[in-house]
Amino acid sequence: MSLLAVGTVAFDDIQTPYGHAEKVVGGAATYIALSASYFIRPVQIVSVIGDDFPASTLDELRSRGVDLDGIQVKAGEKSFFWAGKYHEDLNHRDTLDTQLNVLADFDPHLPDNFRGSDFLMLGNLTPAVQMRVIEQMSKRPKVIALDTMNFWMDSALSSLQEVLQQVDILTINDEEARQLSGEYSLVKAAKNIHRMGPKILVIKKGEHGAILFQDDQVFFAPALPLAEVFDPTGAGDTFAGGFMGYLAKTQDLSFDNLKRAVIYGSAMASFCVEKFSVDRLVELSEKDIRDRVQQFVQLVRFDAKL
Amino acid sequence: MSLLAVGTVAFDDIQTPYGHAEKVVGGAATYIALSASYFIRPVQIVSVIGDDFPASTLDELRSRGVDLDGIQVKAGEKSFFWAGKYHEDLNHRDTLDTQLNVLADFDPHLPDNFRGSDFLMLGNLTPAVQMRVIEQMSKRPKVIALDTMNFWMDSALSSLQEVLQQVDILTINDEEARQLSGEYSLVKAAKNIHRMGPKILVIKKGEHGAILFQDDQVFFAPALPLAEVFDPTGAGDTFAGGFMGYLAKTQDLSFDNLKRAVIYGSAMASFCVEKFSVDRLVELSEKDIRDRVQQFVQLVRFDAKL
Repeated sequence: MSLLAVGTVAFDDIQTPYGHAEKVVGGAATYIALSASYFIRPVQIVSVIGDDFPASTLDELRSRGVDLDGIQVKAGEKSFFWAGKYHEDLNHRDTLDTQLNVLADFDPHLPDNFRGSDFLMLGNLTPAVQMRVIEQMSKRPKVIALDTMNFWMDSALSSLQEVLQQVDILTINDEEARQLSGEYSLVKAAKNIHRMGPKILVIKKGEHGAILFQDDQVFFAPALPLAEVFDPTGAGDTFAGGFMGYLAKTQDLSFDNLKRAVIYGSAMASFCVEKFSVDRLVELSEKDIRDRVQQFVQLVRFDAKL
Repeated sequence: MSLLAVGTVAFDDIQTPYGHAEKVVGGAATYIALSASYFIRPVQIVSVIGDDFPASTLDELRSRGVDLDGIQVKAGEKSFFWAGKYHEDLNHRDTLDTQLNVLADFDPHLPDNFRGSDFLMLGNLTPAVQMRVIEQMSKRPKVIALDTMNFWMDSALSSLQEVLQQVDILTINDEEARQLSGEYSLVKAAKNIHRMGPKILVIKKGEHGAILFQDDQVFFAPALPLAEVFDPTGAGDTFAGGFMGYLAKTQDLSFDNLKRAVIYGSAMASFCVEKFSVDRLVELSEKDIRDRVQQFVQLVRFDAKL
């Protein structure tokens, strides 16, 4: 069993009220793969980098069971770079710089042994690139999940709608769900988005938790209230990695198991924000994760005594 | 057993994307009392109104076990009036008009049979007025809960701090918790606010639910995802009424029971927003409330299979 993850492997420059991390490792596929690696191996990555990417990070990924055969390395070119600065509240950020570099003409190419994967996580990328990945699969995966953002809703809506028709699970934030559906109520937004293709919708609300919708069923998972959120970068991708990693491990798409996947995703995201970059994601133990999930149990459990 | 509630009994003029309710019944004490009346009777109200307030509403309150002996009726004067318009998202609103009228020189006077109440809910009012109510109690209530808002933090912080020292439970929203504590993290805000007096803090986050803090314990209750939120006015007071009504009914201040009180408060608030004014709060059955609480159980329950 394996999980195929597509997305950026990149550098970030991050300013938060807690400090400044210059040119640290980031990228959606990096966060997804590291998070998923606690549940399923191998995680196969499809991405593109320049020859400036540190070998030590690639070694770290390999040591965690990540298969890098789908990463194109462009000689003489630079990796994707994003610089951002978070506001005091950490819920809002300004993009200071975006250098597409190798991403500008990224044409994903799946190694043969990647094409039969049963679980496909399409990280946030141009919808046309996400579609080209689906087209290269030798058979329809059991589960295709997709992450996207408002930028593509503004600039490439029709190709986003096209790829959404192929997708089982959509993970977006609440603003994006409202924009995509044209509905303010998330209940109505979910119904609308179900009709676009994804039968399962996970709305990520950052510090306000996540909501899972499938048909008329709904499940709410809080975010863990933390004393310190150090760096929110990658939390959404880390959520997606934990969520899909857990689904790929358990091979169970019942609503009860989707709920557990949301909790495991939320637990992984709660670790991610505790340090800059992927620093926290490379040092976890199984016990850390189990204890964190137990904190989620405690956080929401009550006896209604009905 | 009884619950004593202090706050406005007033008129609202409310514009939402769903319509315009002109000069309808509102006020913190009205919402608190109606919500609490499903759990405990009598609910004793201390407030002030003009002679313009409809007798039919006062009869409705009496019929629901609300004791109005603590309401001063000022002949020839007008009741407190607030007009507001909600934005499309219903999370933000503009105040269009505030007419203090009888509230301008409100000096609360507690009837003798109100002074021994074990449960006191101080709705949002001038902190000095809240203090005058506490001073008139013949014995220290078992539980004093207080609601307030950013306006008093800006304009009357020292008298707010003084009354907070007397309070067991504070119910405020997340922005207010941050302002009052000077901490962005709600975990840190709670610790800070505990030191100001209230050992129990309920942070109301509207559509994002509510968080309960007591010492190092934390509990999260979501808001019910609703297809239509008609009118959010009074939701926070309705929460407080259900929360305190449930505590007064059960006489149990354990953390497990505080959790249940938060859920009952959230359930009552989820009804409140379904219609304008108090229209939904006067028509509920016990079964409605039980079924709604069951929806909260379903919404958050998962089996972690640890």
